[in-house]
Amino acid sequence: MHAFRSHTCADLRRGNVGDTVRLSGWVHRIRDHGGILFIDLRDHYGITQVLCDPDSAVFPQVEKVRSEWCIRIDGTVKARDESLVNPKLPTGEIEVYVRDIEVLGPAEELPLIVFGDQEYPEETRLRYRYLDLRREAMQRNMTLRSDVVRGIRQRMWDTGFREYQTPIITASSPEGARDFLVPSRLHPGKFYALPQAPQQFKQLIMVSGFDRYFQIAPCFRDEDPRADRSPTDFYQLDMEMSFVEQQDVFDTIGPVIAGVFDEFGGGRRVDAPESWPQIPYAEALLKYGTDKPDLRNPIEMQVVSDHFRDSGFAIFAKLLEQDGTEIRAIPAPRGGSRKFCDRMNAFAQKEGLPGMGYIFWRDANGETEAAGPLAKNIGPERTEAIRQQLGLGVGDAAFFLGGKPASFERVAARARVTIGEELGLTDTERFAFAWIVDFPMYEKDEESGAIDFSHNPFSMPQGGLEALSGDPLSVKGFQYDLACNGYELVSGAIRNHRPDIMFKAFELAGYGADEVRRRFGGMVNAFRFGAPPHGGCAAGIDRIVMLLADEQNIREVIMFPMNQRAEDLMMGAPSYPSAEQLMELRLRVLPQE
Amino acid sequence: MHAFRSHTCADLRRGNVGDTVRLSGWVHRIRDHGGILFIDLRDHYGITQVLCDPDSAVFPQVEKVRSEWCIRIDGTVKARDESLVNPKLPTGEIEVYVRDIEVLGPAEELPLIVFGDQEYPEETRLRYRYLDLRREAMQRNMTLRSDVVRGIRQRMWDTGFREYQTPIITASSPEGARDFLVPSRLHPGKFYALPQAPQQFKQLIMVSGFDRYFQIAPCFRDEDPRADRSPTDFYQLDMEMSFVEQQDVFDTIGPVIAGVFDEFGGGRRVDAPESWPQIPYAEALLKYGTDKPDLRNPIEMQVVSDHFRDSGFAIFAKLLEQDGTEIRAIPAPRGGSRKFCDRMNAFAQKEGLPGMGYIFWRDANGETEAAGPLAKNIGPERTEAIRQQLGLGVGDAAFFLGGKPASFERVAARARVTIGEELGLTDTERFAFAWIVDFPMYEKDEESGAIDFSHNPFSMPQGGLEALSGDPLSVKGFQYDLACNGYELVSGAIRNHRPDIMFKAFELAGYGADEVRRRFGGMVNAFRFGAPPHGGCAAGIDRIVMLLADEQNIREVIMFPMNQRAEDLMMGAPSYPSAEQLMELRLRVLPQE
Repeated sequence: MHAFRSHTCADLRRGNVGDTVRLSGWVHRIRDHGGILFIDLRDHYGITQVLCDPDSAVFPQVEKVRSEWCIRIDGTVKARDESLVNPKLPTGEIEVYVRDIEVLGPAEELPLIVFGDQEYPEETRLRYRYLDLRREAMQRNMTLRSDVVRGIRQRMWDTGFREYQTPIITASSPEGARDFLVPSRLHPGKFYALPQAPQQFKQLIMVSGFDRYFQIAPCFRDEDPRADRSPTDFYQLDMEMSFVEQQDVFDTIGPVIAGVFDEFGGGRRVDAPESWPQIPYAEALLKYGTDKPDLRNPIEMQVVSDHFRDSGFAIFAKLLEQDGTEIRAIPAPRGGSRKFCDRMNAFAQKEGLPGMGYIFWRDANGETEAAGPLAKNIGPERTEAIRQQLGLGVGDAAFFLGGKPASFERVAARARVTIGEELGLTDTERFAFAWIVDFPMYEKDEESGAIDFSHNPFSMPQGGLEALSGDPLSVKGFQYDLACNGYELVSGAIRNHRPDIMFKAFELAGYGADEVRRRFGGMVNAFRFGAPPHGGCAAGIDRIVMLLADEQNIREVIMFPMNQRAEDLMMGAPSYPSAEQLMELRLRVLPQE
Repeated sequence: MHAFRSHTCADLRRGNVGDTVRLSGWVHRIRDHGGILFIDLRDHYGITQVLCDPDSAVFPQVEKVRSEWCIRIDGTVKARDESLVNPKLPTGEIEVYVRDIEVLGPAEELPLIVFGDQEYPEETRLRYRYLDLRREAMQRNMTLRSDVVRGIRQRMWDTGFREYQTPIITASSPEGARDFLVPSRLHPGKFYALPQAPQQFKQLIMVSGFDRYFQIAPCFRDEDPRADRSPTDFYQLDMEMSFVEQQDVFDTIGPVIAGVFDEFGGGRRVDAPESWPQIPYAEALLKYGTDKPDLRNPIEMQVVSDHFRDSGFAIFAKLLEQDGTEIRAIPAPRGGSRKFCDRMNAFAQKEGLPGMGYIFWRDANGETEAAGPLAKNIGPERTEAIRQQLGLGVGDAAFFLGGKPASFERVAARARVTIGEELGLTDTERFAFAWIVDFPMYEKDEESGAIDFSHNPFSMPQGGLEALSGDPLSVKGFQYDLACNGYELVSGAIRNHRPDIMFKAFELAGYGADEVRRRFGGMVNAFRFGAPPHGGCAAGIDRIVMLLADEQNIREVIMFPMNQRAEDLMMGAPSYPSAEQLMELRLRVLPQE
């Protein structure tokens, strides 16, 4: 017989009754029923009930084991009494009577109980991650993550892509975030950088003629930690293809993403990728207040400025006299009660706005009547016009925000989400996708007036070189995101593969040719030697798994995450280097300021 | 029609004749046959011949294109004349007459010609890697690598393993090589380290109850560069399993490796993994002079000390009077000529030895006669005894090396390889595998006399705690390598999961309990909470691909490798950081000594 097991803890069935078996695993739970010891023995695959009574020669040893001891038992499979069968457990029809036991790994007193759902502070969970990971939810999240990555890989291969690995110890390539640096021992004073993304390398792979690349790629950004972001490294599905336009990328990656959500979404509805809307960036901001809208929520905002111009509602009427202002309505079907409207108004105040005006419509003797302070101010004609524009009726409400869009859009977006959730409008059993397209290439810093890239400087501007001779702020890029349930899941672009357009694009953002060559020399040089048109995207693996696992915290879907201060308490990272290590690197640490 | 292509450059066949098609790719070669231009248009998938004559409206544009320009053409598929069909090309039955052309990416004068086999200095190849990678051999190597990694993954999944990602920015974990350090911005003065291997993490995954882990894992070692080693990072197939013994690991990984070599070995013979010999470390050193023997070569060395003791060959006779010395024979079937023997003797001298004694056997009037200076010295009885021990005969030879094995084993191993190759004994159409087992746990530093771990300190000593109370140098570990064609392909061990045995094992090597806790705290702590028996191994991906691709240099199988000075000339890594970056990290670079 095998030294440790003849079966896993998920294997035994009624057909095994009478067999002599060997199992190994952890003591999940021990119960003493009148001198008979019942142990739920757990391994990665399942749980088997084993029992021992004083008739067994090894009873004294069995009596000593405690929770989370790792043990090996030999025993005889017995059928459970019909009344004791556990239909929730695949092994619930049998139990194993212990004839021999070996303690493989005893356990000291546990800082974290594996059995059950007791909550622990995150620091405890991370410090004793190996215990935390034994818990059912974490085993499920980690195997889900593994299965999702496999599912992505399989679909990429099936779509004609090959996976190629790009360097991890490489050159600094400023792409917005802060690099992690790695001092070079062989070249003292010089540093490598860990890649923020394999952006330049994947483009070089296209220039090298490989046509279709993907990689489940580790990415490194020295960023301040957040709940939905790892403070050090994260993984993305990175892909790139040659000889394509924007729609080709959508047609390629859409089915991959949809397939993964279909397979691992636990039955939640996934719209067919052909039906995913393509929403221009400006329209997304207008309708949803964000470029990552949650389309499970049917609410769409509308501009209603005209109804308030020169109206009796002085605040809005006055606002509209300023340039660049507007009034936007958030329709709230079924939200037509004063109580709800006041709650939403309070929500806006909590978010830092003076409040949210509202109108709600009620039935007054068979007539539709607009109610609320705002309705009184602007009168029945205007409220009726608003109602008609928004397509609302009795029992519905609408909220109004005014000013420059940048000043209220963030709150408007959150109000839309809250209204959708509170009114039960948001379909939680669905993954709703939308491509956001036509991102502006440039944005203006409100204070300095300087023009800079709003997203990726490597994207191809729509209209090419010609478009770059007009107003930079009107230039759109072949750049796109895929939004899902309020998250940005994928981001990508058709790249700028033409050096002439690239230099011009950088010039508009204030970068001289020398600086471009210095910062992106690897890629810019390569484009001088027959660069193909190409484009691609990257999808956040951690975020995909978070959505599928229905988790809010990225650390629930990472095996060994850092804590929020970018420390690994279990392994003791970061730590002080030895004097020899620093000397080899020719480095000195400066004293604290 | 698609903006860039209706077909790839490998798609068109006789059945497409008459079709209007669109192709995109690179100008591989241009020939001018009496005013008709023939262009081999190349993409990732293949080559299609396109042609243009002065009748075409776009002839003037076609005339301008040069090698490696990236172009898009529209044209009509035509059948080639029977006499002009190229049977070597899948598209060899057709050609495309150009009706329209668009230059997608022109190319400047090329520093490296893609077409043909011209050799270039490595610096040129790496600086213009995107051109080098367009060459046929590199396209083949990179796709092979990608396919091999996929094949490994598929087989691991099919064997019940899941892939889990372990941290890349983590704690220093001294395992023999030098760490790459990463300064922490949030914790000035502290550093992370890049993992030399996920050793501790994979063991923690076992303690976490995941049972079967694998990962195609990036590993980082700050080592001085070598032809068969990347100076920074490399990839390994890392795997670990719980509740196993050594043979279980062999039975699991053997078929994975064999399967990959079978699939990608280009028809070279792969022995069934059940038949792979298990050779104890000491026996490997004796028979092959190395723990990574090339078993395609049938030569096995033997100890022949007794035949030289008190013999007329004074050098060996005298050597044998010292402790720890021996005489070893390298049999050389079919090597029985003075010319060959002298050449091998010269080889040994070039390797730094005084020479290699030899005997060869020839026919003298129907009798077998031992010849050579050594034979004369020791006389016919002893030479005959040697011949019989080695199983040699007329036409064969044997070479002899003497002294302490450590002083000659390295040369003996190389002589064995050279003899096997020169005599055609080595079967080059084969991958020959062997497990090397029973590695010693400890070794003694000859100078200081200190005892240290000879390999992995985390291996389980054979005989457990009890074995550690005797002579450390006699303790063997459950530790193993898989050798293939003279390379170490896989290395692994059954781990020491018991804290008591671990502390004792480290104590023998001079490490106190405090130091063990400080250096390996993450793992040692975990073992206090129910650690399962576990073991595994790691296989070098780069080396597997090198063997399969028949390449001698690791840089031939890596997309963007560093040069031998650990620099990336294309991307400019490493480079000087900005003053701001250093200040943020609270670091100062010391002036050169």
